[in-house]
Amino acid sequence: MEIINFTDIESLRKRLYRKLVDDDDLYLSVGNILNNVKNKGDISLRDYSKMFDKVVLDNIIVTEDELSEAGNFVSDDLKNAISLAIENVSKFHVNQKNKDVPIETMGGIVCWRKQLPIEKIGLYIPGGSAPLFSTVIMLAIPAKIAGCEEIILCTPLGKDGNVNPVILYTAKLCGVSKVYKIGGAQAIAAMAYGTETVPKVYKIFGPGNKYVTIAKQIVSMKGIAIDMPAGPSELAVLADDSANASFVAADLLSQAEHDPDSQVLLVTCCRKLVKDTIFELKKQVENLSRKEIAKKAIDNSKIIIAENYNQAIEIINDYAPEHLIIAMNDSSVKDMITNAGSVFIGNYATESIGDYASGTNHTLPTNGAAKAYSGLTLEAFCKYISFQTINEQGIRNIGPYVEKMAEAEGLDAHKNAVTIRLKFLQNENRKTY
Amino acid sequence: MEIINFTDIESLRKRLYRKLVDDDDLYLSVGNILNNVKNKGDISLRDYSKMFDKVVLDNIIVTEDELSEAGNFVSDDLKNAISLAIENVSKFHVNQKNKDVPIETMGGIVCWRKQLPIEKIGLYIPGGSAPLFSTVIMLAIPAKIAGCEEIILCTPLGKDGNVNPVILYTAKLCGVSKVYKIGGAQAIAAMAYGTETVPKVYKIFGPGNKYVTIAKQIVSMKGIAIDMPAGPSELAVLADDSANASFVAADLLSQAEHDPDSQVLLVTCCRKLVKDTIFELKKQVENLSRKEIAKKAIDNSKIIIAENYNQAIEIINDYAPEHLIIAMNDSSVKDMITNAGSVFIGNYATESIGDYASGTNHTLPTNGAAKAYSGLTLEAFCKYISFQTINEQGIRNIGPYVEKMAEAEGLDAHKNAVTIRLKFLQNENRKTY
Repeated sequence: MEIINFTDIESLRKRLYRKLVDDDDLYLSVGNILNNVKNKGDISLRDYSKMFDKVVLDNIIVTEDELSEAGNFVSDDLKNAISLAIENVSKFHVNQKNKDVPIETMGGIVCWRKQLPIEKIGLYIPGGSAPLFSTVIMLAIPAKIAGCEEIILCTPLGKDGNVNPVILYTAKLCGVSKVYKIGGAQAIAAMAYGTETVPKVYKIFGPGNKYVTIAKQIVSMKGIAIDMPAGPSELAVLADDSANASFVAADLLSQAEHDPDSQVLLVTCCRKLVKDTIFELKKQVENLSRKEIAKKAIDNSKIIIAENYNQAIEIINDYAPEHLIIAMNDSSVKDMITNAGSVFIGNYATESIGDYASGTNHTLPTNGAAKAYSGLTLEAFCKYISFQTINEQGIRNIGPYVEKMAEAEGLDAHKNAVTIRLKFLQNENRKTY
Repeated sequence: MEIINFTDIESLRKRLYRKLVDDDDLYLSVGNILNNVKNKGDISLRDYSKMFDKVVLDNIIVTEDELSEAGNFVSDDLKNAISLAIENVSKFHVNQKNKDVPIETMGGIVCWRKQLPIEKIGLYIPGGSAPLFSTVIMLAIPAKIAGCEEIILCTPLGKDGNVNPVILYTAKLCGVSKVYKIGGAQAIAAMAYGTETVPKVYKIFGPGNKYVTIAKQIVSMKGIAIDMPAGPSELAVLADDSANASFVAADLLSQAEHDPDSQVLLVTCCRKLVKDTIFELKKQVENLSRKEIAKKAIDNSKIIIAENYNQAIEIINDYAPEHLIIAMNDSSVKDMITNAGSVFIGNYATESIGDYASGTNHTLPTNGAAKAYSGLTLEAFCKYISFQTINEQGIRNIGPYVEKMAEAEGLDAHKNAVTIRLKFLQNENRKTY
């Protein structure tokens, strides 16, 4: 890890630059995949499976039997852990339910909002090296709590021609309606446009490689909502001399093992902690099965030495990390954090626990997006509709003001929609509504 | 208006198709504007003002004097109306403040969310034929209530070389920090990337023409958040024989006057209402100053005759209109609406009132986006950060489960971040945190 002595925020920002996925050639090739699936449907899904995944799809959909039998391949210990995670994630997300109280803004005018589930949603779960069943929990549980009617899931076949059974077991347990054996940009296309087998959805959630990311970006411009822009995972640790260097190193490595492009940061004023953490990193990395990935990520990563902790907090808020661990004595530091995805407080609050089972969501904004985006919350699976009732008294109270404003904007017909009603009310022999 | 007798939802969907702004040439030319502003800053802003708006910019920023003096050009009546609108919009949006209660998901693990304002936001207010000061209220008031620190606003100069004074007056009253005299795609670029004069923001809000829409789409792929995809305005009226045809016609025209591409719908089972509404439309349209626009929009629009009101509601939910007026005797119909931006209930609830002053927001999802998007709410100006504290007891309770799950996902370092802490806790001579 490179050690940077903090001088000013502008030059630090340049050194901490995280590259967005942004490549014109990729846009073209992903665009072609999307168009093919849109125009040719299931046939092109089978073609792409053969081409990219080297598998011949029998059924595109996972059968009910396959879903039911998946549990046979999952150990009881793992089943218990999954159940506990579901329980905690449920508790945290149920707590986000939101009931607005109607409000009479003026006599005769009552306004309210109603939170309603997005009816049809699609989840993408990558294949690749790690079978991310934890992501199934993080997406499907809030969707179920929100009340989404149709929750479908796409995930690629493994090299053995099967979907990972833990993913299937978790999907069934979390109430996913249907699972499809499709990966990559073609899965995003199938859920965005629909095919003979895969239904079209209104919003697509879930992580993926750069093809998946770009496919989600493109369909988001065609009227399909997506969860958030996605990039490589990040962790910042904000620590003082009360931190434990072996814990800090273990935490940095836990993000570093995700992807060679993952960026981990340690921000501190304590030079001893820096020295000890580097020692621990070198020791611990050797024991990891994914050490080659972790080493590359660590090489790209930085330790920033600040002059004081106000400066350290400024660095964190400017960077807006996906995950932030605060390992500091001063418990008021958390109140000064304004930009981050998820914050872990205390020496025992390792990010792993939030990744799996404490209850908070692990789908979080990367690449500084935490300045404007939230991690997934119940609201991401819902939309609000606003409602209002306006009675005779209401339009009498507000009508003249609205006429004035519509006139000032030069919108006659807007004004007339009020005027015609006010005139009607002047007629004593009028109908009563 | 074309009259359609409803047969099935699939074929109706095709006839109600709303075209997305989607034109490869436009993407290229807008992309060039964005790049120029990114690379050349203020100079290119001045060049584009000369080229597109035919005005020579003296200052890019509106001076404090210009802001203070704007009120001299606004009548007292209009000032009163604007104040009333601000009051009602404030009441409705303050009501959306949301305080989550921390929850102990397991012994020793406490999780909560914190709603925080997006620190820097940019508002775009179009120039053109109508000076949309009402949109300033709808964007700036929730931003102020959310607590956004820096609220900037871009709007183009009028042909007289000035920004419309009602826009300036309203901006100042609503707490906008700075106003810039820039329009079009170049305004979006300036707020997304920053220039010498215009600060970079984290999220951009507001309507605009197709150049603005595409510019917002493009910057949203570069890490800048935007409010929502925007298209021409829409209104659906769902009415039974209790409706007043002259009101219905006035409401349809109030949307139709916005844009020749606006789409208005009447969905009903009552043939007499259809006949009377068409009669009223022909009569009322002749008196409108924007009648040429309204006539074109009405020509593109449809009346759908359903066999029963369950079918009518299905049509509405499938279409997901931006605005919906329910002019029906049965007050339970509102409870069956699942997809719409904003719903107006009753014969006096004309959409105009919500557009200006009742309190609800008028920035709403178009083109069916209401299936997955909300209109603007307080949440759009905020993000959530999740927090968690985990103590010794907490990690002892949850640690073994997390180890199991991390192992099953093949993520050693995730597991190790837990294991190293559990081992530490076994040491009786350990430090206490």
